[in-house]
Amino acid sequence: MKNLLIKLYYMLIISSLLSFPQRLEAQNKEEDTSRHLGITKEIIATTLKENRGYKMLSELCEIGPRLSGSDNSLTAIKWAEKKLTEIGCDSVWLQPVMVPVWERGDVESAEIKFSDSNSKNLSIASLGGSIGTPPDGITAKVLEVQNFKQLEMLKEEAAGKIIFFNRPFDNSLVNTFTAYGNAVDQRVYGAAEAAKVGGVAAIVRSVTSKYDNTPHVGVMFYSDTVKQVPTAAIGLIDADFLSAKLKENPDLELTLKMDCKNLPEAQSFNVIGEISGSEFPDEILLVGGHFDSWDKGDGAHDDGAPCIQTMEVLDIFKRLNIKPKRTIRCVLFINEENGSRGAKAYAKETDSLKLNHLAAIEADRGIGTPRGFYVETDSLRLKKLQAWLPLLNYANIEWIKSGGSGADISHIKNSKALFGFVPVFQRYFDYHHSANDLFEEVHPREMELGTAAMAILVYLLSEEGL
Amino acid sequence: MKNLLIKLYYMLIISSLLSFPQRLEAQNKEEDTSRHLGITKEIIATTLKENRGYKMLSELCEIGPRLSGSDNSLTAIKWAEKKLTEIGCDSVWLQPVMVPVWERGDVESAEIKFSDSNSKNLSIASLGGSIGTPPDGITAKVLEVQNFKQLEMLKEEAAGKIIFFNRPFDNSLVNTFTAYGNAVDQRVYGAAEAAKVGGVAAIVRSVTSKYDNTPHVGVMFYSDTVKQVPTAAIGLIDADFLSAKLKENPDLELTLKMDCKNLPEAQSFNVIGEISGSEFPDEILLVGGHFDSWDKGDGAHDDGAPCIQTMEVLDIFKRLNIKPKRTIRCVLFINEENGSRGAKAYAKETDSLKLNHLAAIEADRGIGTPRGFYVETDSLRLKKLQAWLPLLNYANIEWIKSGGSGADISHIKNSKALFGFVPVFQRYFDYHHSANDLFEEVHPREMELGTAAMAILVYLLSEEGL
Repeated sequence: MKNLLIKLYYMLIISSLLSFPQRLEAQNKEEDTSRHLGITKEIIATTLKENRGYKMLSELCEIGPRLSGSDNSLTAIKWAEKKLTEIGCDSVWLQPVMVPVWERGDVESAEIKFSDSNSKNLSIASLGGSIGTPPDGITAKVLEVQNFKQLEMLKEEAAGKIIFFNRPFDNSLVNTFTAYGNAVDQRVYGAAEAAKVGGVAAIVRSVTSKYDNTPHVGVMFYSDTVKQVPTAAIGLIDADFLSAKLKENPDLELTLKMDCKNLPEAQSFNVIGEISGSEFPDEILLVGGHFDSWDKGDGAHDDGAPCIQTMEVLDIFKRLNIKPKRTIRCVLFINEENGSRGAKAYAKETDSLKLNHLAAIEADRGIGTPRGFYVETDSLRLKKLQAWLPLLNYANIEWIKSGGSGADISHIKNSKALFGFVPVFQRYFDYHHSANDLFEEVHPREMELGTAAMAILVYLLSEEGL
Repeated sequence: MKNLLIKLYYMLIISSLLSFPQRLEAQNKEEDTSRHLGITKEIIATTLKENRGYKMLSELCEIGPRLSGSDNSLTAIKWAEKKLTEIGCDSVWLQPVMVPVWERGDVESAEIKFSDSNSKNLSIASLGGSIGTPPDGITAKVLEVQNFKQLEMLKEEAAGKIIFFNRPFDNSLVNTFTAYGNAVDQRVYGAAEAAKVGGVAAIVRSVTSKYDNTPHVGVMFYSDTVKQVPTAAIGLIDADFLSAKLKENPDLELTLKMDCKNLPEAQSFNVIGEISGSEFPDEILLVGGHFDSWDKGDGAHDDGAPCIQTMEVLDIFKRLNIKPKRTIRCVLFINEENGSRGAKAYAKETDSLKLNHLAAIEADRGIGTPRGFYVETDSLRLKKLQAWLPLLNYANIEWIKSGGSGADISHIKNSKALFGFVPVFQRYFDYHHSANDLFEEVHPREMELGTAAMAILVYLLSEEGL
């Protein structure tokens, strides 16, 4: 009996010693979880309470819109460099990038003359990259079509006419990005398709979810093989007006005048700031957006506020005195809207330097309450990321799932995970690329909660790796 | 060998016959799933495309705010009765309810006199249920406190003073309803607590997430055991102004003038419309909100648009020609804001009639993109409901979880499930109970997507029971 007891006693000690590392690991993990929860809550409280990003946004929007190559864009770039320095980044620098330059000019009008004393000016805006018209404008009949296929079918009628692409944004879709994607070909390739069939210009129904008369602009591309003709977006109310008038009188004439023009390339910059990692400085966690905008409104949703959200992620680490284990780098890419020169230059340089981007997060879907993250990664890493949802959910993140990240970071090679931050975007295309995209349309709580969501993800990536 | 083959053949037939019911069931289930998916998509497309609810909302908001017992509220009730009839409900009726009547009057002012030539009028609004002041007003010194505990500690200083409750809405919380709940005691019981310590009136910092100068009103209750004193809400900018001035001069005097008053009870009504169930007409699926509002703004978010979302649920069944198996009933409860008389009367009558409410859904958290449903039910039913998430997710519903349903339906006894519809509510308390709560602040896509979410849930409940 005594022997048996001694035997049992030793067995107990040995088994206890054997399980010690596991127990230690479990205890460490519990401590980590508790620490991560504490920091998650701190991040949320500081963003919502202090609104630092929102205050930065008001400064940025006062500069005005930031079209690539414009004076405004350079002023904004200097402002961002200064802000990242004030935040206390370990390094802040500008990466030189040559960008295309396009200027809207002063004239953009589309007039219908019903009689000598009765005419109407339609609400239009030249599309980015378009050539202008001759000074006297282009006066021609109008051919309305819904898509390129219909234009091809009606090509006998097209020669010498202004082609009016009038396919609407499909508001019956829940996913507004899908609705946008389904309609935007008219804007991007409408001029080239019009020219192919002898059209003299293209007018395009604005690609927007909001029924008002504000034209929504954006990039357009010419084809190398056909003539360049001018192209402009038209507000929805006037698109419907024009369509109705064409039904009454198919021979109605429109006079289009635009003095926009393409200029030689100019010097611009990506803005980069980073906080060095304390344990794995070579593993970069990138957060960023594109710093250029279209020239209507002040580019608050696209992509000013999201850029500032990613700047504030770094500020949060500094003000909460969190020393990241991995390097956190904010990149504000120039020229996403009409060339992606910034993204290409960044990817090229970092690839040649063989930099290790462990992960990258892009914010370019406007401001709204957080919903989730799309991610491009493998299934094992996706599972690891999804295990963080209980923490991310404090900032209203409901899911992490496979999906497209962003136009800028998609150029980066060999990253383990590329994330696209997804806020509620039901209103986004009300503002997008138009004079509606204003500081006043950004809600401070929605903006700051998005910042918190990205900061928590970056914090977890920094602590846990991938 | 031949015998064996015959034996096997019969075994096959028998086994096939035995498994026939299971196979039939599986096939039926597959057909149901496919039909449910088709209808889910139809519901979403028709709401987002046609905006019928949003158009109804513009009509309702033109009537103006709908405080219980007001002429406006009766006009709106008749409007809703007409609309439910036009929708094609099988029955529409008004349920009589006596409601308390309170009138704001024409005078509400709070003046600080710095000198004979220098004074300032603060932005205030009488709280619902408050008595007025004498015609010359109440002039007294002001004691600022953060909460009832501090007031108790300072009670020696309180006698004869206007008590200024200045505890802010905590914007650092993600859940704005929690922030509201943490601050609203000042508004509801501030006057009674002030009177307890000899205070002559109570001024309460508006319970809102938005930093502007609009006072946010709402209900207050007197205690039977202490004197009634007048009470008003103050805009945030002026609350901070008053607080700063009190620090400069604690003896500063405020003159409060209000001519609001309580009047005898008046006749009002719940509005009820229903479509009878084709298979289980006795099983009622209730959808509804409260039709009264405060008298500032036009009560678009609280609770006009959510009421109309539940009306449109019935319209969707009619326009898509879906015959519900169970009865779908829309109830617009009167007087949720200051008495819940409508909810109590409805629950009392339906309880005495022993009506079977299989489930009820309340919409009273404003308009925002859908997020989920809170539900009060048992764990088995919760699991059944959560199995519908893949369909509900088409309308952005991410979760169904245990949580409070709503102030009106919570009076209903013996329902199998009480749901609270949960949209994004980051902006809700910017508008709530104030002149900011306007039609213009409701986004059509957000509203219609919420309608779709509720309609899908009602459809599934109608088809599958609970």
